[in-house]
Amino acid sequence: MAQKPSIPKGTRDFSPEEVAKRNYIFETIQSEFKRFGFQPIETPSFENSSTLMGKYGDEGDRLIFKILNSGDFLKKADKNALAENDSNKLTSSISEKALRYDLTVPFARYVVQHQNEIEFPFKRYQIQPVWRADRPQKGRFREFFQCDADVVGSKSLWQEVEFVQLYDAVFSKLQLNGVTIKINNRKVLSGFAEVIGEQDKLIDFTVALDKLDKIGEEGVKKEMREKSISEEALDKIQPIFNLKGDFAKKIEVLKRILEGSEIGQRGIEELQFIQNAIEAMPLKTAKLDLDVTLARGLNYYTGAIYEVAAPDKVKMGSIGGGGRYDDLTGIFGLKNMSGIGISFGLDRIYLVIEELDLFPKTVTENTKVLFINFGESEALYAMKAVSALRREGIVAELYPDSAKMGKQMKYADKREIPYTVLAGEEEMNNEKFTLKYMKSGDQLSLNLEELVKKLEMI
Amino acid sequence: MAQKPSIPKGTRDFSPEEVAKRNYIFETIQSEFKRFGFQPIETPSFENSSTLMGKYGDEGDRLIFKILNSGDFLKKADKNALAENDSNKLTSSISEKALRYDLTVPFARYVVQHQNEIEFPFKRYQIQPVWRADRPQKGRFREFFQCDADVVGSKSLWQEVEFVQLYDAVFSKLQLNGVTIKINNRKVLSGFAEVIGEQDKLIDFTVALDKLDKIGEEGVKKEMREKSISEEALDKIQPIFNLKGDFAKKIEVLKRILEGSEIGQRGIEELQFIQNAIEAMPLKTAKLDLDVTLARGLNYYTGAIYEVAAPDKVKMGSIGGGGRYDDLTGIFGLKNMSGIGISFGLDRIYLVIEELDLFPKTVTENTKVLFINFGESEALYAMKAVSALRREGIVAELYPDSAKMGKQMKYADKREIPYTVLAGEEEMNNEKFTLKYMKSGDQLSLNLEELVKKLEMI
Repeated sequence: MAQKPSIPKGTRDFSPEEVAKRNYIFETIQSEFKRFGFQPIETPSFENSSTLMGKYGDEGDRLIFKILNSGDFLKKADKNALAENDSNKLTSSISEKALRYDLTVPFARYVVQHQNEIEFPFKRYQIQPVWRADRPQKGRFREFFQCDADVVGSKSLWQEVEFVQLYDAVFSKLQLNGVTIKINNRKVLSGFAEVIGEQDKLIDFTVALDKLDKIGEEGVKKEMREKSISEEALDKIQPIFNLKGDFAKKIEVLKRILEGSEIGQRGIEELQFIQNAIEAMPLKTAKLDLDVTLARGLNYYTGAIYEVAAPDKVKMGSIGGGGRYDDLTGIFGLKNMSGIGISFGLDRIYLVIEELDLFPKTVTENTKVLFINFGESEALYAMKAVSALRREGIVAELYPDSAKMGKQMKYADKREIPYTVLAGEEEMNNEKFTLKYMKSGDQLSLNLEELVKKLEMI
Repeated sequence: MAQKPSIPKGTRDFSPEEVAKRNYIFETIQSEFKRFGFQPIETPSFENSSTLMGKYGDEGDRLIFKILNSGDFLKKADKNALAENDSNKLTSSISEKALRYDLTVPFARYVVQHQNEIEFPFKRYQIQPVWRADRPQKGRFREFFQCDADVVGSKSLWQEVEFVQLYDAVFSKLQLNGVTIKINNRKVLSGFAEVIGEQDKLIDFTVALDKLDKIGEEGVKKEMREKSISEEALDKIQPIFNLKGDFAKKIEVLKRILEGSEIGQRGIEELQFIQNAIEAMPLKTAKLDLDVTLARGLNYYTGAIYEVAAPDKVKMGSIGGGGRYDDLTGIFGLKNMSGIGISFGLDRIYLVIEELDLFPKTVTENTKVLFINFGESEALYAMKAVSALRREGIVAELYPDSAKMGKQMKYADKREIPYTVLAGEEEMNNEKFTLKYMKSGDQLSLNLEELVKKLEMI
C-alpha cells in the first residue's frame, strides 16, 4: 500500500535552488576559514553517549537524540528501570550512541584523542550538521548545520583580534555590509559582580543584564531585585545601563566602574588590546562595538565573548557568536588547553541574505542550453555537440525523449534554461545548429565551433 | 573524572589532510554532475521509520539505525512486546525515526512529496552520508558518504549513454585512467532464464552467475546444480562462461543464445544502442565492457546494470555501480516513474587514488607563510602584512605567541609551511620583511609590496 510521504518535524528537504544558495554561503565561509589558515576536520555524526552526556546541562541531555542499540537490545536492558517504567533510567542500557549536539564537544574529544598528531596551536574549522530534539519553531530546526572555527593551545589575544577580522572578511565577502560585531569579556562581568559584592550572584546578574535589549532598564532591575541584588549594588552599576558613544568612551566609563576590581581591569585591558589592533587595521565593512550586556554561554566562556548582529535594516537575532573558553579539553583529561572559537549561524545568514536580495544571480544558474530531441539520429548529432560543449565547461543537456516540440520548449522554459538548440534534418545536412534565445525568440545558425564560442561568451 | 575519549566502532575522524583529499574527490564528482545538468538536493539525515522500513529486505531493516523517541518513551511502549521481552516487536513503539540507509529511498520519497514542484525528467544529484549497523571491517564503515546521480521520468536510452559518459568524465578528471565500465541488462538475464526454461529460478541463476569471478565456472555450475538447474539448461548457456573478445563479439554470441527469447532480444538491443553511441562518441580514458555475469541489485533493476572496476593494476572491488529501475516511486504511490542512476564509491575511490599516488600535491597545501612573532609591536607590524596578504588570497598566519624562535620555526616545519617571515625591530625601522624559504634557508629582504608580489608568484 502506498504511504503518504512526509519527513519528521523539524527537518527539511532542500530543493536544488536552496542547496545552491546554502552552498554559496558554506563555500564563502570555508574559503575565508582557509585563507586565515584554519584546517578542516570532520567527526562522526554519532558519538559514544558518554562523550556527549553531561556536557550540556540537564536540558541539553534531554535534547540529545539517542540511537537505539541494534539487535536484541532488551537483553542488556536495565531490569529495574523496566520494572519502574523509568524511561530516563532505562536509556543508557538500551542506547550507547547519540547524535552530535554541537561541534565543540566532538572537537574537544578529537583534540584529546589525536593530541599526538596535532601541532599546537591548532586552528581547525568544521562545517557539519548537528541534531537537537528541540521543539521545532520558526527558524529552529532539529537538524541544522554549524560552521565553527576554533584555535586551541594558545592564550594570545591576537586570536581575539583575528576572529573579529574573520567575521568581517566573511560578511564582507557575502556582501552583507554593516553587521555589528559585539564584544564583551567575561572578566568584565566578573568585575561587576565583584564591585557590587555579589560574586556568588554572577550568573543571576548577567542573565538579567543580558535581557536589557528586550525588557529595558526597569525590567532588568526588577529581575535583579528579585534575585536579591541590593539597591546599593544597582546604584553602583547604574552607568552600565546607558553606556553610550564609541568603544573608547565606553571603556572610559568601565574603567571608572571597575576601579576596584583586578579581574575587571584585566577584562578591560583585553578589550582595549582588541580595539587598538582593529583601529590599526580597520575592518572592511563590519563595525566593532562593546556590549557589556552580552553574556551568551557564560557557563564556559572565560574571556572574550562575541555576538554578531545583522545590519540594522533587518530584524533578526544574532547571526554568529563565540568566545574564549580556558579549559576546553579538561573534560577529556587534557588540561591547560585554552581555546577560542566562533560560529556562523547558517540558517539566519541565509534568511538575511534572502531578505536583502544579496544572493548573486549566478548562484542558482544551472543548465545553459537544452538540445531539442528530434529522433534517434538527430539526437546522436545533438549529443556529439553536447559532449563538445561540456568539454569546454558549458552545462548542456539533450532532452532525453523525442517528445513534441512544445513539450520540450516548455520544459526549457520551466527550468529557466536560457538557450535551446534545434538541430533537425536540415541542420544535420548543413552541419549547422540553430541556437535560440528563449527570452527574445532570436535565432542564429551556427556550426559547432561557432556554437561553442558563442555559448562560452554569453 | 576524565574519560578516555574514543569514537563508536565503524565510524571515523577525518584529519585536515584526509578532509582535503576527500573534498577533492567530492568536488570533482560534483562539478561533473553539474556539467551534465544534474541538480543538487538534500534530504534529512533521519526519516520517519515508515519511510525506510521494509524497503531493503529483512537484513536491511535490521541494519537501519533507529532513533529512540525523546522524553518518556516508555509511555507509548508496546506492553505485550515488553512482557514477551521481544526487542524487535518493541522497536516501532519506542522509535519513530531512523537514520538514512541509502540515498535512493529518500530520493523516491522526495520526488513523490515534491512532484508538483519538479519538472520531469528530473536529473538530481545528492552527496550525503548514510548509516548502516553493519559489522565494521576493512573498508566497510557504519557511516559513509554516497554520491548519487539519478534521472526520473523518462525511459530514454540516451540516459544510459549519458551515465557511461559521466563515469568516464569523473574518472578522467580524477586522472584515474583505465577504469572499466561494465554493463549488463536485466532483460538479458531474464532471457537466459527463459531460454533454459527456468524463469522461476532467475534469482538463483543470476546470484550463482555473479560469482563467476570468484569461484570459477565449475563453482558456478555446482551452485546451479544445487539449485536444481538441469544439465540441459547448463549446456544451453555454456557459451556465456567463456564470452571473449570485444563488445560486438560478445553481442553476437548473446544473439545466438537468446534467439528464442523476446525479452532477451530487447536487452541486447538496449546494450547495442549504448555501445553504438559510445562508439560514435569515444570515451576519454575509460573502457566500456559487456559483462553478463553482472547482477548487482537485481531485485530492483529492470534494464541496464552498471559496475565500475578500478584500473587493472589495483586490487579493489567495484568503485561505482547503478542501473535502471522502472518503478522507483511506486512504493510511495507515484506510478510509472522510470528511473536510472549511478553511484560513486567514495571510500574505495580514495584508496585507489592514494595507492596510485594521484592526489594532486596542491590538494593538501595549506598555509603558505608563517610570520614569526617577536612581541607586541612587531606582531602588529606582522599582522598588517598578514592582512594584506590575505586580501590577495594568500594563506598567511602570525604565530600567536612570542615564543622562542626555535619553537616557532619547528611549528612551521611540522605543519609543512614552506615560508616564514621574520620582522623584528630592524625590519620595522626599514619597513622591510625578511622572507625565508624553509627548505633551503634562503632569505630575501622585501618591502610589503614586494613581499605580496613574491608570494603571489611562488
